Amino acid sequence: MKIAVLGTGSVGQTIAAALAALGHDVVIGTRDPRTTLARTEPGAMGGAPFAVWHAGHAGIDVATFADAAGRADVVVNATNGGGSLEALTAAGAENLSGKVLLDIANPLDFSQGFPPSLSPVNTDSLGEQIQRAFPEARVVKTLNTMTASVMVDPVSVAGGDHSVFLSGNDADAKGIVSGLLKDFGHRDIIDLGDITTARGAEMILPLWLRVWGALGTGTFNFKVAR
Amino acid sequence: MKIAVLGTGSVGQTIAAALAALGHDVVIGTRDPRTTLARTEPGAMGGAPFAVWHAGHAGIDVATFADAAGRADVVVNATNGGGSLEALTAAGAENLSGKVLLDIANPLDFSQGFPPSLSPVNTDSLGEQIQRAFPEARVVKTLNTMTASVMVDPVSVAGGDHSVFLSGNDADAKGIVSGLLKDFGHRDIIDLGDITTARGAEMILPLWLRVWGALGTGTFNFKVAR
Repeated sequence: MKIAVLGTGSVGQTIAAALAALGHDVVIGTRDPRTTLARTEPGAMGGAPFAVWHAGHAGIDVATFADAAGRADVVVNATNGGGSLEALTAAGAENLSGKVLLDIANPLDFSQGFPPSLSPVNTDSLGEQIQRAFPEARVVKTLNTMTASVMVDPVSVAGGDHSVFLSGNDADAKGIVSGLLKDFGHRDIIDLGDITTARGAEMILPLWLRVWGALGTGTFNFKVAR
Repeated sequence: MKIAVLGTGSVGQTIAAALAALGHDVVIGTRDPRTTLARTEPGAMGGAPFAVWHAGHAGIDVATFADAAGRADVVVNATNGGGSLEALTAAGAENLSGKVLLDIANPLDFSQGFPPSLSPVNTDSLGEQIQRAFPEARVVKTLNTMTASVMVDPVSVAGGDHSVFLSGNDADAKGIVSGLLKDFGHRDIIDLGDITTARGAEMILPLWLRVWGALGTGTFNFKVAR
């Protein structure tokens, strides 16, 4: 499939590389490709500068948010949750219409320090905000409950014996996303229901952050034991 | 140990019966024991009236919140989260001072229908509210992330291969609670840290409710796979 990954951080890089390795035609979307490629400072999580990463993944094109989304069948929102609506607006509603929009971001607010707060909560979610802002997109919330390396290589944790959640209004879109998740190696895919159930999947983040602190690693995932 | 279980609903009944079966001296605390024992209507979850349940558990005394807490070494808050502070105030700070206060409640607000909202979130938790209101109590938040039958019989789900979380400021209190959890059959006890980490453990509830909806049963638990 033609897949646009919006976001050039470590999550976007990890997802884009994994999708390309599966044989998909992947393009990374960013605000200004020239600025992104000229960046020499390390990433926010201490990763290599984007250009260094990209030199090792030359098959992945880099384009504006709009160009990337426009040429894709599936769009992955791998931007920071706080900037997702702005990035998707730059991508353009016309370029998202009818597309599967895989939302893996979390609406974390770091303005008051660490650990960050989650906003919205309870009566809304980032997944719903995106679906409301782009009603013609087929939003599926998933993968936001684990770190990027586990998203694309679930077998690396407990042999893959853990769970991933799906929320979305469009059954066909959830089917397409389930296929991608299975290609990554996910075996226990739990369909929570419509996009409002993203409230649940997003609200696990505060626990995820404390478990990360307790274990000293983000390389874990939640399993629904039953 | 002498253990007071505050709350006469299905969670309180389940916890009290399990602790008594382990050989502890258990008393159930309620606002007005005579009213509780005279109740003939079914419980909120469709369970038997309290008196019917109590007839089968005659070894468990029923007392006021204050009497129950006053005679116990360990106090379990099994009241509804929305009424926990009021119930603990009725129990009395002097009867909670120095005691291990095992808080298993969730601050769920059903006033807007189902699914309920969680309040507080992000910057506070019920566990912290209780610790602030009763600074001499040794509050440990735990078990709130699963249904009552799994709290006391974890082996009934996936052979017990799942996780339970601890949050609290007092290491000795967490040690005593860990002992009780092990007696119930819990094997993976994850100490998240101080009582502020209860924010994480409480914020999993919205996901718990959606998983309950997706699976059609509350008989599951989260495991931290790693």
